Amino acid sequence: MVRRPGRRPGKQHTRETILAAARETFAECGYDGATIRQIATSAGVDPALVHHYFGTKEQLFTATVQPPVDIAEVFPKLFEGELDTFAERLLTMFMSIWDHPVSGPAFEALLRNALTNRISARLIREFFTVQIQRRAVARLAGLIDPAEARLRATLVASQLFGLAVVRYVLKFEPLASASRETVIATVGPTIQRYLTGDIKRPDLAEKARPSGQTGPGGQA
Amino acid sequence: MVRRPGRRPGKQHTRETILAAARETFAECGYDGATIRQIATSAGVDPALVHHYFGTKEQLFTATVQPPVDIAEVFPKLFEGELDTFAERLLTMFMSIWDHPVSGPAFEALLRNALTNRISARLIREFFTVQIQRRAVARLAGLIDPAEARLRATLVASQLFGLAVVRYVLKFEPLASASRETVIATVGPTIQRYLTGDIKRPDLAEKARPSGQTGPGGQA
Repeated sequence: MVRRPGRRPGKQHTRETILAAARETFAECGYDGATIRQIATSAGVDPALVHHYFGTKEQLFTATVQPPVDIAEVFPKLFEGELDTFAERLLTMFMSIWDHPVSGPAFEALLRNALTNRISARLIREFFTVQIQRRAVARLAGLIDPAEARLRATLVASQLFGLAVVRYVLKFEPLASASRETVIATVGPTIQRYLTGDIKRPDLAEKARPSGQTGPGGQA
Repeated sequence: MVRRPGRRPGKQHTRETILAAARETFAECGYDGATIRQIATSAGVDPALVHHYFGTKEQLFTATVQPPVDIAEVFPKLFEGELDTFAERLLTMFMSIWDHPVSGPAFEALLRNALTNRISARLIREFFTVQIQRRAVARLAGLIDPAEARLRATLVASQLFGLAVVRYVLKFEPLASASRETVIATVGPTIQRYLTGDIKRPDLAEKARPSGQTGPGGQA
């Protein structure tokens, strides 16, 4: 970065410096391990300035990932209604995001960055773990063992990422131009089974852990 | 490219020129549309030289994609044995490729290129259509309607790409470190259903086509 002498860095520059420091810190230490103080030190600013620009630690974290939708807003909507029609709501929302002229390209850029940039990959993984998987585990508490719920969430993610790659990015036919109804009819049962259906787990028996070890907020 | 004056371009240079012309031509015209003559003209060489360096059109096409495994070799193995244990064989092979110190990184590079480079994306799509989907449709002939078999092949691809992204590239836990047995037990039934199970297709009824229109070699 080249600073012109005699000119103080502007707001935009400060914002970007904080964001770059936050990306590195979150990628390095994880969401739970990173602190605002640490990020402020790394950016060479006062912690109060970080809060001023980005709000809470969670908001700053979200700013480093820039997800195409507000997870805190859409997540409760997905869990409105019966759990056994979850897949249809999830797929409908997922396809709406991809078909949208703004959030579609944003989602594609996110995926592309995640696959080509090591820091972006770590941030996405952390975002998934903290913002999506934990929420899913909390929602399924009482219904599904937390350790199993964590696996189920990654299985759902695997089918969604694959749908994104094959239908929207690589455009394999006929899935690329299939109707939403066809996607829901074909992929829906996969998502539903991953979430609430029978998934045999031979290794759960092998390395069974005390359930207290992996709570909804656990990092296992 | 900088050529030293007075020095004739070497074999390696000619090979690369042909390969670059082939990539562009296959991406532009598709596998069926592209001809060796056209590629030779674009590369400024004699068609015989293209055959000399790369063999058949199919071999040249494979050279442009550089798949981590020889599809012509592995495909028949997947279809050895009962069709209802296909998913286990496919997933075992898929995970072996990813876990291999040479083919794993090659597969990851292929995926990364496909998502970041427009020509690579088209080549992968073409490769999937010609080398994988057509083989699957031919293998399933008599069992499954060709139009439906094409959709089934893309659904299988969607789960495999998603598994690649989530388990191997982004490494979402606990799927990233799950045993192969767990992956087969959880993802296997998805693959198996996509290939041979019940998939409802509301739009097949809508736009039913005469089955002759999309044969095993069809490009629909």
